[in-house]
Formats: sequence, C-alpha cells, structure tokens
Amino acid sequence: MNVVVQKYGGTSVGSAERIASVADRVAAQRANGTGVVTVVSAMSGETNRLIALANDLAGQPAVREMDVLMATGEQVSAALLSIALQQRGIAARSFLGGQIRIGTDNAFGRARIRSIEIESLRRSLDAGEVAVVAGFQGVDADGNITTLGRGGSDTSAVAVAAALDADVCEILTDVDGVYTTDPRICPAAHKLDRISYDEMLELASLGAKVLQIRSVEAAKRYDVPLHVRTSFDDSSGTWVVREEAGMEETLVSGVALDRDQAKITIRGVPDKPGLASKLLGPIAHGGVVVDMIIQNSSVSGDTTDMTFTVPQVDFERALPMIERVANDIGAAGVAADADVVKVSVVGIGMRSHAGVAAKMFDVLAGEGINIQMISTSEIKISVVLAAKYGELAVRVLHRTLVEQES
Amino acid sequence: MNVVVQKYGGTSVGSAERIASVADRVAAQRANGTGVVTVVSAMSGETNRLIALANDLAGQPAVREMDVLMATGEQVSAALLSIALQQRGIAARSFLGGQIRIGTDNAFGRARIRSIEIESLRRSLDAGEVAVVAGFQGVDADGNITTLGRGGSDTSAVAVAAALDADVCEILTDVDGVYTTDPRICPAAHKLDRISYDEMLELASLGAKVLQIRSVEAAKRYDVPLHVRTSFDDSSGTWVVREEAGMEETLVSGVALDRDQAKITIRGVPDKPGLASKLLGPIAHGGVVVDMIIQNSSVSGDTTDMTFTVPQVDFERALPMIERVANDIGAAGVAADADVVKVSVVGIGMRSHAGVAAKMFDVLAGEGINIQMISTSEIKISVVLAAKYGELAVRVLHRTLVEQES
Repeated sequence: MNVVVQKYGGTSVGSAERIASVADRVAAQRANGTGVVTVVSAMSGETNRLIALANDLAGQPAVREMDVLMATGEQVSAALLSIALQQRGIAARSFLGGQIRIGTDNAFGRARIRSIEIESLRRSLDAGEVAVVAGFQGVDADGNITTLGRGGSDTSAVAVAAALDADVCEILTDVDGVYTTDPRICPAAHKLDRISYDEMLELASLGAKVLQIRSVEAAKRYDVPLHVRTSFDDSSGTWVVREEAGMEETLVSGVALDRDQAKITIRGVPDKPGLASKLLGPIAHGGVVVDMIIQNSSVSGDTTDMTFTVPQVDFERALPMIERVANDIGAAGVAADADVVKVSVVGIGMRSHAGVAAKMFDVLAGEGINIQMISTSEIKISVVLAAKYGELAVRVLHRTLVEQES
Repeated sequence: MNVVVQKYGGTSVGSAERIASVADRVAAQRANGTGVVTVVSAMSGETNRLIALANDLAGQPAVREMDVLMATGEQVSAALLSIALQQRGIAARSFLGGQIRIGTDNAFGRARIRSIEIESLRRSLDAGEVAVVAGFQGVDADGNITTLGRGGSDTSAVAVAAALDADVCEILTDVDGVYTTDPRICPAAHKLDRISYDEMLELASLGAKVLQIRSVEAAKRYDVPLHVRTSFDDSSGTWVVREEAGMEETLVSGVALDRDQAKITIRGVPDKPGLASKLLGPIAHGGVVVDMIIQNSSVSGDTTDMTFTVPQVDFERALPMIERVANDIGAAGVAADADVVKVSVVGIGMRSHAGVAAKMFDVLAGEGINIQMISTSEIKISVVLAAKYGELAVRVLHRTLVEQES
C-alpha cells in the first residue's frame, strides 16, 4: 500500500471548521486507496493559551510539567480530527506520542527523537484506518511526556514517514510553498517547485520559517521527500528532495533576510592561541548562541579584532559578559551595534559556478550598501548590513541573481 | 508517613487564581510533614468546551476519541497545579492515568478501575514530592486512554487512597459538606458531621450530587474514610465513614428531592410469568435506565398494572417503546406523566426504629399530598409525588423527621 504522511499545522486545524476541511481533504485521499497517516499540531492559539496559564502561576515553570501541559494541545487536535473523519465514514484512530512509543531523550521542551515503534501504526493502516498522530510529543525512557520544541510536529511527521518508508511527507500549512524570497519584501518572488535538502537547510536556518530545521535534517538523513503545500486548496507546493540532476543550473535558489541579528566587536585583542575560546566560552556558557564569527588576521602583528553576531533577544545579556571578558584579556575595547541585518543568498549552483560572491558584492556596492561582515559556506553567502539597507539588498539581489539568471 | 489524598474538583481549580490557592493549601499541609497526593479534575468549563468542539464536528463522536479528548482537561490541571506547587518551593510531580497504570476495562466514557500500580506514587512520596494525579482517566489493557464518567475524579481519588492505604481521602469542592437536605429548598437544612457509607450511597443515588456514587461504593469496599469539605476555607466538612456506634440514634439523616423522574404506567397487563422481563427488556436494550418499578398484585386475578419511572431525558424515547410492547402483549393501555418528582428519606436509624414510613405518609397526608408510588429499602423510603408538591414535601419531612427528632 502506498502511504502518505500529512502534517497539518496549527492554522490548518485552528477551528472546528478548519478541522472539518482537513477531514474532507483526507477523505478524498483515502478514496483513491492511499494509506494516510496524519500528524497534527495544536490548534492555533492553544499553545499560547496554555503558556499564559502556566505563566500566571510561575515565572519559570519547570520544563517537565510544561511538557505535560503543552502536549495536551496536540492531543486535542488528534482526537478532534479522528472524530471528524469518523463522521465522514472514514475509519480513524488517534495515537499519542507515548502510544506509538516516540522515544526521545529527556531534554524536556526540546527533546530529540531516538526511536519509534510503528507496529500499531502499521496495524491501523492495514485495518484501513487513517492514523492520526499527535505531533510534537514523545516519551522518555522513564515514561515522562516530552516535547520536541517549537515546530516539532514537522519532525514528528518526518520521523513517522521515515519509519513507515512513506512515499512522501506532506507539510500542510498556511503558505503555498517555499519562495525565492519573502514576497512581502520583493513582489517578484516566486514559489520554488523543487529545492534540495541542503538549500532548504540553509534557508530554514536563515529565517524562512516554513519548516523546522531539524525536520529537514531528518528528511535528508532518511531520504524522505517533503512536499510543503497549503492546506487551503489542492495546489502543488514545493518539493524538498535529494539533490537532482539539473538543480545546479539554478545559480541562486533563494535570498533570505534575517532581522534577528546584533553585532559585537572586540577591538585590539592580543593575538594569542586559545583566544576565541577564551572570548566565546563565557557567552556559550551563558546560553547565548553565537551565529557568525569573524576574526581578522592581525595586521599589526600582535593584536586583532574579533566580531560576531548574536540573536537580538540575547544582545542585552551578552554585551556585559563580553565587556567583562574583553577587560580580563586586556583588549582595547568593545563596540556593539544592534541595528544590523543579515542577507544571504543560497543555491547549490554556487558550487559549480564561480563568481556569485563577486557579483553579489558588486550589486550591493552599486546601491551604495556597505558590507560589514561576510561569511560563506559551500552553497551560501551571507553579509551583515546596516538594518536600513536590508530590504533594498534583498530586492536587488533577487533581481540580479534570481530573476535575471532564471 | 501519614498520607492524605486530596481531590480538588473543577471549581476548586477553575482558574489560575484558584489553582494558586489550592497550592497554598497543599503547601500548608506539607509544612506539617504529611505526605500529600492530590487528584485533580478539569478546570470548570473545560469539559464543556471540549464537548462543544467535538459536537461541532460530529453528532455522536466515537467514545474512544472522546476519551482522548476529555482526558486533556485533567492533564492540564495536573501540570498547572504541579507548576504552582514548585513555584512555592514544594517538590511536585504530575502523574497521568497511564503513568500510574490506572488500569480499567475498555468501556470508554464510563470505564471501571481494575488496578493501580502505586510504586511510582510511593517513590514520589518517599522523595518528599507532592504527587499530582490527573483524575477521571485510566488506560485499558491495550494502552487506550479511558475515562471514568462524570465525577470520575472522585473515584480516582478513592482508588488511589485505597491503594496507598491513606489516612483519609478528602473531597474538596465548592460546598462545605453533605447537608440534611438542599438548603435552597429548606433553610433549616444543616451540615452533617458524619454519615455512613450506606446513607451516602442512598443520598448520592438520589441526586445529592456531592459525590460520584461509585466513589462511595469504592470507599465503602476499601474502608477509606472520606471527608467532603470546601476548598475555599479550612472548615471541617462531612466525614463519610463506616457505620459507627450511635449513628442509629439519628432516625433520618437526609431528605432528598429528585426532579429527574417521569412515570409510565401500563394498565391491564395479563398477569403471566415473565411479564416484567417482556416489558422491561426492550427499554433496557434501548439504553433507558429504569429507576423504580412497582407491580401491584392483581386483584381481579388475571390482569395487573405495572408502573415505573425513568429519567426525564429518556422519557420521550421510552414512551413509544413501551406503547409498542404494551400493544404486543395485549395490555389495556399506557398512561404517562412527566410531571412528577421523587422524595426520599434516608437513615440507618430506620433499621432499628419502626414507624418511620408511617410517620412519613402521615405527614404528607396532613399536607394533602397524594402519594403516587412508594418504594423502600432497608434505610430509605422513596415516594413519587406530583411535581408541584416536591419542595413542600421536603420541607415538612425535614421538619418532622430531621429537625424534631434531632
């Protein structure tokens, strides 16, 4: 039997009416004989409602109990979708994380899946039922409820699809696919028909919030084709797949804007071995995730500058830590700027086509945009710019690297 | 260690504020070294919210999925109370029905508890934690979530108390105990300090909705003292206990009014063996629960009348069934009256004191109230009356049998 795993996000199951419409969609799929496993998120708004209740009671609720609380959201969705399917004469059965033993570590709130027991899912499919899995949740080795972190239902869906060797894992959401860039910034943005896992990983990590990054990693590892599409109509969306012949002909697949950046520079650092760890150790220890790190080679010979970026939310917390460390190691001073953005171009075509970086810098210079930092990977070039240039940069890069090249 | 099981009903955990106040109460109890297990209901209103969601999707949602849905209510309460306790520096841990293996049969929506594995509760208590158990829920042998029916959290609490051999099972609610009758009908009603299991069973089955009847049965079977009290202050409530010396001195413990009654009479039934089953079989099969059944001995010798009462909600459904059966067996006709109530007096004192029934009938006659049906047990006398006399009957019976005798 062909099996399709369909993950429905919060807006797709956000009301009784939307759940009924999802049930109609699943019923149509069942009508042509395909086996269907659905993975559901909490109804939109429900997660925030539960968090607010907990916050009324404690400033920092314990993570174990937060997971017990949050897991109810997906449980409600799974029961309701099962009920809606049965009402349409479709046999259906809900499964909680614990009931299909989605085994995780015990990192409450951000647990990682280690195993799934699919026997009961198989039995359900063999019996002609639609299996409705509560996403986002698992159990640890002691039977405690765990959750997988924000967007974790995507990862649940990919894990189930991989375990069942499903033909496709459809991610049904309120957007109709992955775009070359944010259409609100650049009206010429267009939907991508296909994109490789690696490109999607770069785009996901750059703030294209369509898919949880761990779900893309898992899809790549287990070679599960993802199909990101809207739940509001039947149109085809974007397939996220293994790299295919011809993909490299597209130079740049997407341009991403990440506004969640702040920049900190330590000037005049004595250039000695172990410097980076001495500087960055304390912030990592403080729970701040550093994104880009740039160290200039020292020109004068004995001191260097080091610049890095942190998420906006961590900026106020990170700055005094850095100032303390800079002082300890005898640096000349610290400069900080929270008014920056990161603009990135992503495409596996870069691997075979030289000159994308040069073209990118050229285009930005042509608009009088000063580049503050540069970071590259095999299929990505990121630059940090003054925030005011962010949208302009996206538009000109999209025009010259996406529109004119396609 | 002394262990107390405390069950908090829906109004007691009906808001973050109320949950905080429950946490304060539990903290005070912990301060004197008592081990505390709390069993919580869903926040008031939550159950109805979930039912409404399901009813938006299906007229008759499947019971298995309804249980998955409903069980989230208690799960939310358990997580929130644990969070509130931890905020007060009290170690706490939530337990779902499945996590302490509250094993039930698979009668979804009205499952019965068969077993509990208390090892994890014991460990939690030994570690100095407050164990916060989600009431109302269990798991069947296949790992499906089950629920115990309305008021099932009382039964959860008694089962946990019995398994732990707890000193007392406190039922904390929004009333301050069990009353001799409904104070809204009879201002002279007073709270009972102590009452026997048997009396409580009769009162519970007669519409004094303080305790789920199955929880009283379980408390009696396992000899768990119940203490019904308010969660809004520290006042003592009503102890429901094994029959004690001196209890029989109280003639009548309570007077109950049950408005949920309708009466159906089949006239001129040929008086042959097997009659009752022939008549009542079809309604039982149709899911209607018959309460009182009265069959007069046949005077003429060959026909008799049979009268019984059914819940108001089943009346419209039961009547045509009965008319069909009456016709089949050649009865003379069917009469029905939905405008009746049942008034009952309950007291273990009746066992040793003759004449309570006579006094009851005398008092009612004195008020000109016609008795339509009579049914008695060892410690209860029930009469069916025209609905308009219900409250008057309660007041006069309370005055003559409770107030004047005490």
